[in-house]
Amino acid sequence: MSRTTMQVIELAGAFGVDNLRRVERPIPTPGPGQVLLRIHAASLNYRDLMMIDGAYNPRQPLPLVPLSDGVGEVIQIGDGVQWPPVGARVCPIFAESWLAGPPTREHLATTLGGPRPGLLAEYRLAPASALVAPPAHLSDPEAAALPCAAVTAWSALIEHGRVKPGDKVLVQGTGGVSIFALQFARLAGAQVVITSSDPAKLERARELGAAFGIDYRAQPEWGRAARAWSGGDGVDHVIEVGGAGTLEQSLRAVRPGGSVAVIGVLSGAASPLNITPILMQQIRLQGVIVGSRATFEAMNRGVAAAQLRPVVDRIFEWGAVRDALAHLRGGRHFGKVALTLR
Amino acid sequence: MSRTTMQVIELAGAFGVDNLRRVERPIPTPGPGQVLLRIHAASLNYRDLMMIDGAYNPRQPLPLVPLSDGVGEVIQIGDGVQWPPVGARVCPIFAESWLAGPPTREHLATTLGGPRPGLLAEYRLAPASALVAPPAHLSDPEAAALPCAAVTAWSALIEHGRVKPGDKVLVQGTGGVSIFALQFARLAGAQVVITSSDPAKLERARELGAAFGIDYRAQPEWGRAARAWSGGDGVDHVIEVGGAGTLEQSLRAVRPGGSVAVIGVLSGAASPLNITPILMQQIRLQGVIVGSRATFEAMNRGVAAAQLRPVVDRIFEWGAVRDALAHLRGGRHFGKVALTLR
Amino acid sequence: MSRTTMQVIELAGAFGVDNLRRVERPIPTPGPGQVLLRIHAASLNYRDLMMIDGAYNPRQPLPLVPLSDGVGEVIQIGDGVQWPPVGARVCPIFAESWLAGPPTREHLATTLGGPRPGLLAEYRLAPASALVAPPAHLSDPEAAALPCAAVTAWSALIEHGRVKPGDKVLVQGTGGVSIFALQFARLAGAQVVITSSDPAKLERARELGAAFGIDYRAQPEWGRAARAWSGGDGVDHVIEVGGAGTLEQSLRAVRPGGSVAVIGVLSGAASPLNITPILMQQIRLQGVIVGSRATFEAMNRGVAAAQLRPVVDRIFEWGAVRDALAHLRGGRHFGKVALTLR
Amino acid sequence: MSRTTMQVIELAGAFGVDNLRRVERPIPTPGPGQVLLRIHAASLNYRDLMMIDGAYNPRQPLPLVPLSDGVGEVIQIGDGVQWPPVGARVCPIFAESWLAGPPTREHLATTLGGPRPGLLAEYRLAPASALVAPPAHLSDPEAAALPCAAVTAWSALIEHGRVKPGDKVLVQGTGGVSIFALQFARLAGAQVVITSSDPAKLERARELGAAFGIDYRAQPEWGRAARAWSGGDGVDHVIEVGGAGTLEQSLRAVRPGGSVAVIGVLSGAASPLNITPILMQQIRLQGVIVGSRATFEAMNRGVAAAQLRPVVDRIFEWGAVRDALAHLRGGRHFGKVALTLR
Repeated sequence: MSRTTMQVIELAGAFGVDNLRRVERPIPTPGPGQVLLRIHAASLNYRDLMMIDGAYNPRQPLPLVPLSDGVGEVIQIGDGVQWPPVGARVCPIFAESWLAGPPTREHLATTLGGPRPGLLAEYRLAPASALVAPPAHLSDPEAAALPCAAVTAWSALIEHGRVKPGDKVLVQGTGGVSIFALQFARLAGAQVVITSSDPAKLERARELGAAFGIDYRAQPEWGRAARAWSGGDGVDHVIEVGGAGTLEQSLRAVRPGGSVAVIGVLSGAASPLNITPILMQQIRLQGVIVGSRATFEAMNRGVAAAQLRPVVDRIFEWGAVRDALAHLRGGRHFGKVALTLR
Repeated sequence: MSRTTMQVIELAGAFGVDNLRRVERPIPTPGPGQVLLRIHAASLNYRDLMMIDGAYNPRQPLPLVPLSDGVGEVIQIGDGVQWPPVGARVCPIFAESWLAGPPTREHLATTLGGPRPGLLAEYRLAPASALVAPPAHLSDPEAAALPCAAVTAWSALIEHGRVKPGDKVLVQGTGGVSIFALQFARLAGAQVVITSSDPAKLERARELGAAFGIDYRAQPEWGRAARAWSGGDGVDHVIEVGGAGTLEQSLRAVRPGGSVAVIGVLSGAASPLNITPILMQQIRLQGVIVGSRATFEAMNRGVAAAQLRPVVDRIFEWGAVRDALAHLRGGRHFGKVALTLR
Repeated sequence: MSRTTMQVIELAGAFGVDNLRRVERPIPTPGPGQVLLRIHAASLNYRDLMMIDGAYNPRQPLPLVPLSDGVGEVIQIGDGVQWPPVGARVCPIFAESWLAGPPTREHLATTLGGPRPGLLAEYRLAPASALVAPPAHLSDPEAAALPCAAVTAWSALIEHGRVKPGDKVLVQGTGGVSIFALQFARLAGAQVVITSSDPAKLERARELGAAFGIDYRAQPEWGRAARAWSGGDGVDHVIEVGGAGTLEQSLRAVRPGGSVAVIGVLSGAASPLNITPILMQQIRLQGVIVGSRATFEAMNRGVAAAQLRPVVDRIFEWGAVRDALAHLRGGRHFGKVALTLR
Repeated sequence: MSRTTMQVIELAGAFGVDNLRRVERPIPTPGPGQVLLRIHAASLNYRDLMMIDGAYNPRQPLPLVPLSDGVGEVIQIGDGVQWPPVGARVCPIFAESWLAGPPTREHLATTLGGPRPGLLAEYRLAPASALVAPPAHLSDPEAAALPCAAVTAWSALIEHGRVKPGDKVLVQGTGGVSIFALQFARLAGAQVVITSSDPAKLERARELGAAFGIDYRAQPEWGRAARAWSGGDGVDHVIEVGGAGTLEQSLRAVRPGGSVAVIGVLSGAASPLNITPILMQQIRLQGVIVGSRATFEAMNRGVAAAQLRPVVDRIFEWGAVRDALAHLRGGRHFGKVALTLR
């Protein structure tokens, strides 16, 4: 490796996409237990946008290299690394110290793209223990789509929700997590109802296996519509990405004893919420903050076995990261927005 | 049985405790699958108060015989009843059709004391399938304390929470459910922190095994205090009885990956709630609406094995039900408020 | 209903298929909580053969009406029956008193086809609580295939095994339970390896979705072959139908921490077994004795959602029940053997 | 640290306690991620005896430093070690690479005292990730008692068995695992029946909280006796340490749907076993091979919260390890046999 410097895009000076700039940095050398990755592709999550805007964590120190999700190749390994070998294709996990079991405060303080540096860089050091091998049948942009969005959907539906054949699942919208949730629910034999304001997206979702689509603009009481579709008792699981603005409808959609996986707050974090239905219908609200390395590995086995392909909406060059972020913010995407770094 | 009529106290004309009146009714005869009970004792839940006030369900038809919880003796059995025999001491279950498994809308429409008639009556018919035998070591007022409060605490901690030795449990206040939760948590080897505005009640809770008490008037940030007591990471389980007014503190008290059992809305049903911590800390909110007959039976085995005694705060004659309700409303009780009917 | 008598085939005098005889019996009248069914189809399980042979329970009193599985139509209902209505198509559950939760000794003493009377009769009384509605898209012989074989496979894989996408499942042979297990495993996103001594059956299993087939005659060490197929660590789940004669190979096939569902003893009940691998590999052996009404209902939702069709090997007239039993004993079937009763 | 050599007791030349010899070895230096421990105490498990006898793994290469369980102090730390600090008291975990989740073949190949070197040495290197801090209230011999015996009992009852208040647990004998199982079952609110051939041991077990004791010499049908004690249905959980020689009675003792944790094969590994009861009563046999670091840590929280004290039968000087092993083999111990190394 004759190069000694690399390109990095970092957020410096102040929050806001206008403060993303490309800088030159020395390529680091892996210490004991570390590997050096050449990043090949990355993907965007709404969290990245909030982080860059300063909305996710206003106290995040700058400069920050954004983006938590990506895939790369092992270029060099430090002392004592048994796996991965040089040349392996790997994805960094979202929270570097969260290997298995439930999360701790310590685990949750080691997430990439804030507080720890992210993947918007040609090279990056990673602890060898914080990597997984993505399924071989995936392209780099597809593999880059997995770490947050797919692991979150898997954790919500398969691990927490224990979805089984015949269950009914409500998926909100057609963003990255929602489309993975649709795919995983189908893989596990469940039936899916999905919401969108765009009839064309509902049609695409049906092609991916959704049984029913609801235009939430046309039907603001979409919770009732989902419940009616379920046969009247309510759906078994809801994948709640909207937060305070959609939870009321989700609580109408779900059956007594059912569960609502709270994985996003796209429509706002706080608003007056009547919690009585949670109590009266014995509903479970399960927050899901991605998942551990063990969850990522279990998901990879499922994705590989089914030869499932992530839905990548659009791929940008990494130099066009502002355009990619604008595309994500615009909300017209279906599935994941990716970047290539080579 | 030479009597042909019985005394019943019912809510008639309009909501409000002033509209409770004692009336004379014919003693009914059990049909196929039914038994006739002579009620010996009953107990009050906050739900009963809300029901009588018209706050629980403003559309509840009147007249209504209030109260869901009690214990009685089998006086007569209908055709095809194999159990219980005449003379058996039994408690009606809260939702008459909910025998096992998760609740359905149909189950939840069969609860006693509204919409179905309650136990504030000398005699009552019951489906033979909707009865359980309370532990033999309990007095009638103690047995009458079980159906809602104890089953709710058991369902929350033992079934949903799977509390285990070494777990830390936060219990709010010293009402009926909370004191059962304290007792069951101790029985299962957990450590308990409890809140109250009354130092004398905190002292009594410590005598029952609580490891730590927090005066929530003196420490409005009692969620932080509970978390500090836990060692910094947070408690494993919260028994949330306050609802919207206390949930924010509960979310501060609980550890990442921990659970909050939502079992009451004493402080109000709706208020602006920031759901972000649920997501960011992967917290589970589990609504608990009492439990099935199977849960009641499992709890009875635990109560009997430990020879555990419910804490009965005060026992009123059933004719003094208005005084008993006022006592409950006053909030000075510790444990359960009971009535005797003979 | 002008007929007053019905045809019944019962085992009388002594065990053995030669002692099955057709007799005339009065059509009974449903008492409180009962319904009268007109049986339309039945299916055979290996248990029925063992029962008739006297091998299942040598102390079973005779005469006995054999067969536990079937489907019929409600002809008449007794007092107090709310469901099913006259005209409904229903399947009796295997253990009449087992409605939900884990089994008790009492539940297991209420199984059909011994000790309680079975379905080899034109009409049969049934408790209204011991019936389920099979999926509407199924023919009568298909619906008759469900009560034991399908519920057992569902209980083993979905409820006890919690099979998930990407799991690997070993299915032994191509009998009724095994083919349902293959279908349910596929429905839940798992991969299946199946054994048979007949290459043509392995080919049919592959058409149904099996990923790999092992001819156990050609490969007596089929446990190792299954483990090699899994990638070396072992399969996640085994559906063990052979009993003592096959368990050793099953323990070789399964991964550490994996599970073996013990559902049959086709190859014999007792033989020297080395239990050390169970301990050393932390393996779970889970006996499965069909399942409750709740399990049957959950399975029906899964079957209906997927429009899954049971594999019926061959349909006999019920008068030819001896031929049907001989066919089952011969072991050349693939899936279920059924009878029609009209 | 001026010493450069240490005393080690190793098994050399051939299997058998006569081949244990004390040798002088250089004190090693911790590499990256490693720490150097000064061992303070160790404890014996039956596995150690089998290992030394060559019965556990006849292909175990020699020389081998025996013993898997102990406690020590951190003397020196290698590069990159964040925890534990010098001076910390720690216990090595049984399988060095098994940190959380279910075991893999790779995890199970890293157990101490064979195949990896054990703790019968003044000093030992350990991966920093393979250590836990034992509860502070324990003496060194008490802390040394935890790694295998206590973790196995915790894994069996609390994690796999999910024992709850009111459950009934059968414990076989009064060895190390069994006494921990008795203590943990009591801690979790369960009732315990225990077997022994020594009335004095049964009396001691009652002092520790056992509800009932069975002299298995006087009652060879102790499985029936345990079932009768349970009220007739059977116990919920069995802690099976005897293996093939006792499993038949265990299967008589357990209720339908109950579980038998298979944790030892003291009475022999293989014998003719009738597996029919497993199937017919839907029994779960769960092999338990100690547990992960996460399980050890969860147990420590439970032990610390209850200030529970392990039962140490007798403490030997480590130079008298042959006497200690003979004492264990003699079977007259009650609880754990320990060694001190300083």
